[in-house]
Amino acid sequence: MSERLVIIGGVAAGMSAAAKAKRSRPDLEVIAFEKTHYVSYGACGLPYFIAGEIERVEALVARTPEQFKKQGIAALTRHEVVEVDYENREVLVRDLDGGETRRERFDYLVISTGASPVRLALPGADLPGVFTLRTPEDGLAIREWLDRARRAVVVGGGYVGLEMAEAFRKRGLAVVVVEAMDRVMPQLDPEISEIVAQALVRSGVEVVTGARVEGFAGEGALRAVVTSQGTIDADLALVSVGIRPNVALAEQIGVRLGPTGAIAVDEKLRTNLPGVWAAGDVAESVHLVTGEPYWLPLGDVANKHGRTAGAVIAGEDATFKGVVGSAISKVFDLAVAVTGLTEERARQAGFDVRSAMIKSRDRAHYMPGGHPLFVKLVYEASSGRLLGAQIVGGGSDALRVDVVAALIQQRATVEDLRRLDLAYAPPFSPVWDPLLVAANQAK
Amino acid sequence: MSERLVIIGGVAAGMSAAAKAKRSRPDLEVIAFEKTHYVSYGACGLPYFIAGEIERVEALVARTPEQFKKQGIAALTRHEVVEVDYENREVLVRDLDGGETRRERFDYLVISTGASPVRLALPGADLPGVFTLRTPEDGLAIREWLDRARRAVVVGGGYVGLEMAEAFRKRGLAVVVVEAMDRVMPQLDPEISEIVAQALVRSGVEVVTGARVEGFAGEGALRAVVTSQGTIDADLALVSVGIRPNVALAEQIGVRLGPTGAIAVDEKLRTNLPGVWAAGDVAESVHLVTGEPYWLPLGDVANKHGRTAGAVIAGEDATFKGVVGSAISKVFDLAVAVTGLTEERARQAGFDVRSAMIKSRDRAHYMPGGHPLFVKLVYEASSGRLLGAQIVGGGSDALRVDVVAALIQQRATVEDLRRLDLAYAPPFSPVWDPLLVAANQAK
Repeated sequence: MSERLVIIGGVAAGMSAAAKAKRSRPDLEVIAFEKTHYVSYGACGLPYFIAGEIERVEALVARTPEQFKKQGIAALTRHEVVEVDYENREVLVRDLDGGETRRERFDYLVISTGASPVRLALPGADLPGVFTLRTPEDGLAIREWLDRARRAVVVGGGYVGLEMAEAFRKRGLAVVVVEAMDRVMPQLDPEISEIVAQALVRSGVEVVTGARVEGFAGEGALRAVVTSQGTIDADLALVSVGIRPNVALAEQIGVRLGPTGAIAVDEKLRTNLPGVWAAGDVAESVHLVTGEPYWLPLGDVANKHGRTAGAVIAGEDATFKGVVGSAISKVFDLAVAVTGLTEERARQAGFDVRSAMIKSRDRAHYMPGGHPLFVKLVYEASSGRLLGAQIVGGGSDALRVDVVAALIQQRATVEDLRRLDLAYAPPFSPVWDPLLVAANQAK
Repeated sequence: MSERLVIIGGVAAGMSAAAKAKRSRPDLEVIAFEKTHYVSYGACGLPYFIAGEIERVEALVARTPEQFKKQGIAALTRHEVVEVDYENREVLVRDLDGGETRRERFDYLVISTGASPVRLALPGADLPGVFTLRTPEDGLAIREWLDRARRAVVVGGGYVGLEMAEAFRKRGLAVVVVEAMDRVMPQLDPEISEIVAQALVRSGVEVVTGARVEGFAGEGALRAVVTSQGTIDADLALVSVGIRPNVALAEQIGVRLGPTGAIAVDEKLRTNLPGVWAAGDVAESVHLVTGEPYWLPLGDVANKHGRTAGAVIAGEDATFKGVVGSAISKVFDLAVAVTGLTEERARQAGFDVRSAMIKSRDRAHYMPGGHPLFVKLVYEASSGRLLGAQIVGGGSDALRVDVVAALIQQRATVEDLRRLDLAYAPPFSPVWDPLLVAANQAK
C-alpha cells in the first residue's frame, strides 16, 4: 500500500502542496478535499469577476479536478473534512452533496483550510443583500445580486473593500465606503491613506471614516446600513472587516497556534504534530524584518507555503524562510504597494525610525501621459537599515516596491538603495528614478 | 577672489555637477560652457521629439540658462572650450556666435564633454538626408527633414536605432533597419534579440541583419543606402552605429584614459590630474560584477557622476562605486531591459555560466489585457551568484529588472531571488511572479 498524503482545503496552498508532492514523488497517493465547488482558484481575482472584467468565475480556476486527475491527484470538491482522528491517522470527510461521511487514512496531512471573513454580529447582518467575499460562490451570489442593486455600502476600507468599491463603481453603482478607523487603508501610513482617499473621491466613491456600523435595516432584503454617523441607504452591502484563520480542525487535534492566532509552523511548514503540515492562510510566517511570527494571508505566500510543504513531504530539502509583508493593490487608477514595516508599525516594533517621502513621476518630465509616483521609505535612524517602503503610482509602476523588498531581505541600507544602478529610459522613469530620489532625500 | 569651478559641457553630468557644487558650497563661482544651443537637456528624449510625441525640443530642457542664473550658476550656450591650459589653470573658450576666443581661469575643472556618434567614412555619408542623432540640433534637423521623407533606413539595430525606427514608423515612414551583426540588439543574448526582431516585424519594420553599409547614393540628397545585401531606396538615413567619448581635450593635457577609451576616474570622479574631474559619457565607471572599468554612457549614470563630482568639489564625502549595466528601452509595444552581464559577456568574462529563460505574463492568467513577459537569468554555476538578467515585456513591467539589479549589487544568489517576497495582485503579476518562476527554473 503506497503512502498517502491528505490535504484539507484545495485552493492555493493545498493544491500547490498536492502538485509539488506528486511531481517530486510520483509513488505518493495524493487526495485533496475541498468543501466549495472549485479547487485551485484565484480568490484574489473575485473583485474583477464581480466588476465584469472576467466573464465566468471558472476562469479563476488554475486547474480543474479533471486536470489534477491526469497528474494522478484526486481533488474532490464539495467534500468537507469535519474531523481529524490524529491517533488513527484518519480524517472524517463529509460528501456535501451525497450526505454521507466516510473515513480516509493518511500518512501525511496538510491543513490548508484557509481563512474566513469576519462576520459582524449585528442586527440584520443576515439580510439578503449583505455579503462577504471569499469564495467563488460568494462572488457568484454578489454578481447575481447586482441586477437589483443601485447603492452599495462597503464596510471596511482595506484592500478587498477598496477593490470591491472599484468593482461596484464599474457596475454603475453608487458606492459608500464605511471605515471604523480614521482613514482608509489603515494598515498603511496616514499620508498614503490620504492619497488613496483622494483617488476614491475622484472616482465618485463617498468615504466615511471613524464610523462604526451598528446594523443593517430592511424587510426581506437590505434597505440601509446603520452607522454611528447616520443611516446610509443601500441595497447591497459588502462586509470586509478582516479575516480569521480556520483553525478549528487543527485545534481539535492539538496543533499549536502561534501568537497571531494562525497555526505555528517551522520553516519546513511542519506543525508541532509529526506528520501534520499547515500551509497558506491558516498558517503563520516569520516576518524577516522583526524576526517575529507574522500572519500574511495572501495568495502568493499560500502558493509558496504549499510548494514548500509538498517538497518537504516528498523528501526534498526545501524551506520557506519568511516574508517581508509585500503587497500591492489596484484602487481605481492607482496602484498602492507596500513592503516591510510602515512607519507606524516600525515604531511599535521598537525601531528608532526615520522616514522620507517624495513625490516624483513615472516617466521623464517631458514625456506625455505620465502619472505621479509617491515613494515613502522607512529606515532605522542609526544604521540606515531599510525597514519598509510604501509606493503609490499609476499602472504597474508601484511594483518598484519589489526593489526595496529585495534590499530589505538582504538587510541592506538606504545607502545601498542610493547606489543602485536602475534601468532608465524616458518612457519608464525620470532620469533620477523615484526610488533614488527617495533615497537621496533620506540622506 | 572666490574659487572657481569651470565645467566643459553643460548637459546631464556637467549641469548636475554645477548644481550640486553650487548648492553645497554657495561661495563657489560656477561657470559651465556648452557648445550647443541648449544646456541640461534630456538627449534620451530626442526619439520621442522626432516621433511627434513631444511638441517642442525645448521641452527636453530640465533647466534653462536663466534658471541656472537664478541659482548663481553661469551656463553659457554656444561656447566651446577649444583648449585647456592646465599649467595656468585656464581654459580657452570660443564664443561660437560672437567669434572671439577668451581665457577663463579655473580652480576646479569638470570635463563633461560627452560622446559623439561614430560617423561612417563612406561615399555619400555627407549627403543631405543622412543623419546622426545626439543633440537637440540633430533632432530638429531630422524632424524638419521628415516633411520630405517617405522611406527611412536606420543603420544600426541598437537601442537608439530601434527607438528611431519606432519614431519613423509613428511618422508614417517605411522603415528598414540594417544591422551589421547577425541580429538586432546584438549587445543582448540571441533569444532576446529574436523577441525584439519579431516585434519589429509586427510593427511593419523590415530588418536586414548581417549587412554592411557600403555607401549612400544620391545627387544633392539621399536616394538610397548601398549595403552588402543590396541597395535600399531611402530618402532619410539615420546612422546609429555607436558613440565614442569626446576625449580630445582631456588627452591634450595628459588626462589618462582607461582601457575602454573613456577617461579613467576614481570613485570620487577624479582624473589623474589634480583639480580635474571627469563625469558623464566621457568617463568610465567600474562594473560591479566584473570589477573592471566599464563604459556605460547613459543619462542616469551621467547625472550620478555629475552629482558626485559636484559634491566632492564642494568638499563633501561622496563616492560613486560603479554600475551593473542596467538599461531599458522601448521598442514599439515592448520594453527591453537588461542588467548585469548577458550570458555571452559573462562567458567572455570567464564565469562558469548557467542561464534560465522563462515565458510568463504580466498579470494573472484570468485578467484581460495581459502581455507576455520573458525573463532570462544569468548566474554562476558553482555559487548560484546572480550575474545578469534580461527581461522583455509590455508596459513598464520589464522594470522588474531593477530587482535583479539590486540583488546583483548585493552579490546575492539565485536562491536569494527565489526567496523574495514580491508584491502580488492579479492586475500586476501572476501569483508566481515571473522573477520567481525564472528563479525556480534556475534551481
